Parts: sequence; C-alpha cells; structure tokens
Amino acid sequence: MKTSIELQNILEEHISPFLPEHNFRDVLLYSLIPSGKLFRPKLVHALAQDLDSLTDNHLYLASSLEIHHTYTLIHDDLPAMDDDDYRRGKLASHKKFNEYSAILAGDALLNISFGLLSKINHPNLNQLISLYSEYTGAKGLILGQVLDLEIQKQSIERIIQIHTLKTARLIQLALEGSFLLSNSTLKQSTISQLGLSIGISFQLLDDLSELAEEINGHEMKINPFLNLDSNILLKLLNEHLENIQSIIKENKLECISLIMKEYFSKMLNLINSGESQIKSHLKDFNISQLSL
Amino acid sequence: MKTSIELQNILEEHISPFLPEHNFRDVLLYSLIPSGKLFRPKLVHALAQDLDSLTDNHLYLASSLEIHHTYTLIHDDLPAMDDDDYRRGKLASHKKFNEYSAILAGDALLNISFGLLSKINHPNLNQLISLYSEYTGAKGLILGQVLDLEIQKQSIERIIQIHTLKTARLIQLALEGSFLLSNSTLKQSTISQLGLSIGISFQLLDDLSELAEEINGHEMKINPFLNLDSNILLKLLNEHLENIQSIIKENKLECISLIMKEYFSKMLNLINSGESQIKSHLKDFNISQLSL
Repeated sequence: MKTSIELQNILEEHISPFLPEHNFRDVLLYSLIPSGKLFRPKLVHALAQDLDSLTDNHLYLASSLEIHHTYTLIHDDLPAMDDDDYRRGKLASHKKFNEYSAILAGDALLNISFGLLSKINHPNLNQLISLYSEYTGAKGLILGQVLDLEIQKQSIERIIQIHTLKTARLIQLALEGSFLLSNSTLKQSTISQLGLSIGISFQLLDDLSELAEEINGHEMKINPFLNLDSNILLKLLNEHLENIQSIIKENKLECISLIMKEYFSKMLNLINSGESQIKSHLKDFNISQLSL
Repeated sequence: MKTSIELQNILEEHISPFLPEHNFRDVLLYSLIPSGKLFRPKLVHALAQDLDSLTDNHLYLASSLEIHHTYTLIHDDLPAMDDDDYRRGKLASHKKFNEYSAILAGDALLNISFGLLSKINHPNLNQLISLYSEYTGAKGLILGQVLDLEIQKQSIERIIQIHTLKTARLIQLALEGSFLLSNSTLKQSTISQLGLSIGISFQLLDDLSELAEEINGHEMKINPFLNLDSNILLKLLNEHLENIQSIIKENKLECISLIMKEYFSKMLNLINSGESQIKSHLKDFNISQLSL
C-alpha cells in the first residue's frame, strides 16, 4: 500500500504538466497540497491491489479523483454556495485569493480531472469516462450539491439521498473505476454496492464527528441531524457497516478492509470524545452500538 | 452542411441522457437552447466534410464543444467574474435562477462536455481528450479568463494573448479535434494555424461589432481597444484574414470557406453600420481595408 506522502508526490507529478507558468498555478496547488485524507485515491489503490491488478492506469485514476474532489470543495465553499471561510484548517480558496480565482481554479481542476484520464491506456476507457461523468455530473454529485443547497435536510431519507449523490457517487467511482481497470471475476454491481455503503457510512460518521467537534468551539452552520431519531440513524449506519463487512469478507478484499478499519477507528475516537455533545443533538445516541 | 436547427436538435438529443429528472435540468437547458451561432460545431462539421470524413464521432465532438462553450459563458457572467446580467438578449443564468445554480450549471456542462467524449469510438480518443483538456484548461481557455480578469487590456500584444487563449483555443480545438477524428494527409499544425487565425479574427471582429453596437444604446463595460492605434489593429486583423484565405485555398477547404465568408459578411455589415461610432474610439478606422 502506498503511503499518503507517496500518493501526494504522485499527485503533484501528475498535475504538473497541466499547470501554467503563471501565479494561477499557486491557486490550483493551494487547495490540493497538502492534501486531505486521500481517501478516494487510497480506495482506488486498495481495490486494485486486492484484485492483483495495480497498474499506472490506477495511479492516474487515483490522482484524477483527488483533483476532482478538490474542485468540489473549492466550489462548495464559495459565498454563493456554503459560504465557508475555512477548509482543512486554512483559509478557503476564495478567501486566500479572491472569488473569481476560486471559481476558475475549481473549473480548472474539474477540467484536469478529465484530462488526466487521457493518460489511461485501457480498453474500458470509454466506459470509465462515461461512468465518471454520470457519477460526478448533473445526475450524480452535482445534483447532490443542488439538493443540499435547495432544501434543509429534514428526513433521514433526504439526508441519505444527498449523501448518496454528493459523497457516495465519488467513492463508488473510485471502486468501480478501479474495477474497470482491473482483471476480476467479481461483479461490478457488488463493487458498486460496497462503494455506496462506504460512501454513506463515511459521510454519516463525518457528520457525527463534526457534531462532536462542536465541543471544541467550532459551530456547525447546519445541524444535519435536526429532529432525527438516533435509533433510526444508528440502525441505518450499522446496516451499511455490516454490508461493507460482508462484501469485504466474501470477496477477500483485505486492503479495502485495512483502510476501512483505519478510518472507522479514527472516526470512532473523534465521536467518542464528543459523545456528550452529540447527545445534546441526538438523544439516546450510544456509540457502543456501532462496530466494524 | 447541417443547418443550425439540425445541429441544435442533435445537441438536445446528445445532452438528454446526462440530464436529471429535477428542475436543475431547466437551468442547464436555459443557457444552451436556443443556442447561439453554433460557430464551433459548424467548424467541426465543415472540416470533416472538407476532409470527406464526417462520422458520428464528429457529431459528438461538435455538441461537446458547444456545451463547453456554454459553460464558459455562464461562469463568465457571474458577479465575481464579468458580472453581466444579460447574455444573448435574455437574463444571464445567475439572474434568471440564482448564483449557486449558475455555478453548478457551469460545472455540470463542463462535466458533460467531457462525458460526451466517451461516445467517441476512435483510436485517437486519448489524444483528443489530452488536447481538449490542454486547450480549455489552466494553460488555455481558463488561463485566458484569468488574464482577462486580472488586468486591463493595454497593449495589442496583451489583447491578442487573451484572445488566443480565451477564444482561439476552443476554435483550434474544434478544427484540430475534427482533424484527429478524420482521415487526412494535411498536417495538424496547418489546421492549428488556421484555427488560431480564425479565432483571433473572430474575436477582434466581435469586439469591433460590439463597439459598433454602442450606437444602439448598449454600453461596453471595458473598451478593449482603449488607446490603440487603428492601423496596427487593422494590419493585424488583415494578416490573420489573409492567413485564413491562404490555408483555405491551398487545402481546398470549401465548407470552411463558406462558413468564414458567411460570418465575415455578417460582421462587416454590423461594423459598417456603426463605423462612425467605432471611429470615436479608433481614430482612422477604415473598414474598407478589411477583406476576406
């Protein structure tokens, strides 16, 4: 398994030919490096390794997805969108530079994420691009952004719909894309199901950890769990975690298992430390009901 | 040659599978249909016909470029960019809907423009995607947008640099992309030169026609020709027009010739009708010095 530093170095190498000799270059790199958790690139690699198929094609896909993810964050933070001044502990792009630079940096990263796919030499390239555009486009991730902005999340169904589109689709793309570039006897639909459950549980745990972090003085603009019954939430989360476990076990996806256990234990620690804070939003919340 | 109505129908058919069952669909279609001049799709078709190579691949590229062009217009009009309330005689996307919808509609159209390339079945697909991303990305069109916003255009060199990146690159892509999907003994560099000259002259004529239209009560925010010597401008424009003519003639590009003559005569009429107005900005401007 590649380390985060290695993945970040590959990312820098991959994006370099797309960058201009102009200080707009700094705007693009500012949001990308240092990178976040690199969760999506790691999933691409992990599945390729589990399928004994890791190639340069997977490396390009991994970088492409991180670049794509970064564009969505830059645009999400814009004043007309979520209006967030900070991202990953530093100023958001439009605060560090200015609004038009952030809009154009997002556009450029979106563009580069597709441009990088041109490096992939594989008979499934057409299929990959088609899936990429479907999952990240107007029926996928971007529709998730629209739904997230147009309405207050009221019901668990609505939350799950938004998480499915805005978060899970890109994670499904990491896994299904990695699968399309590999040799495997598994079914794509199984991999898609795995991605969906990872995506939804990833985002729900992230939401819970944000609630937990309020205790440290951060305040959430919108509480995603307003008026929710914590039993329903925990039941749903556990269903997805069980689904992940069963697919991993059945198909011997050991690298995927490693990544999920690492992420899950990290999130559980965060959530644990703020459980009392979470309980002020979600009565009866009991973290011991969760397991992976 | 396909009519504008036919091209627009094909465009609608091509984009349809990418659109969601949600009113965000209307935001995407609002800026796309009715379409503008369809200059880029027409160039794709014209060159393919001149090279006796027209296929469905060219149709997909043509639609993709119009969709891509439309995303750039939506983002260009945003308050943080050019802040234009109107586009093609109707409200700009962010005025008709709202700002976040316009940002996301631009993102979605950019996404779809690449997604549509997945329909192309041709050995040069990788090369096409690579060129597409280069010409429209952070070293191409988007860098042109950055330069356009960061500085007042002062010198003819700066104007030409911006027109090269912001306008000509997409027109070069139409021609070079069409070429890559065709069978031809021509050189790509010749086609690239043709695209560059068409792009720059297209934009200069467009700028002049906008100056001419001020007479009808429209006022330009920025006069792109401030303090310019009209002789230098006309000389440069004529050089590009002569270059276009010579490449067309040498390579018997009759369909391209037809499109250029049609566009040139339309622009000449517009410019003619406002020549006195143009002269108030550009002393010694004399339209009779231009010919195609």
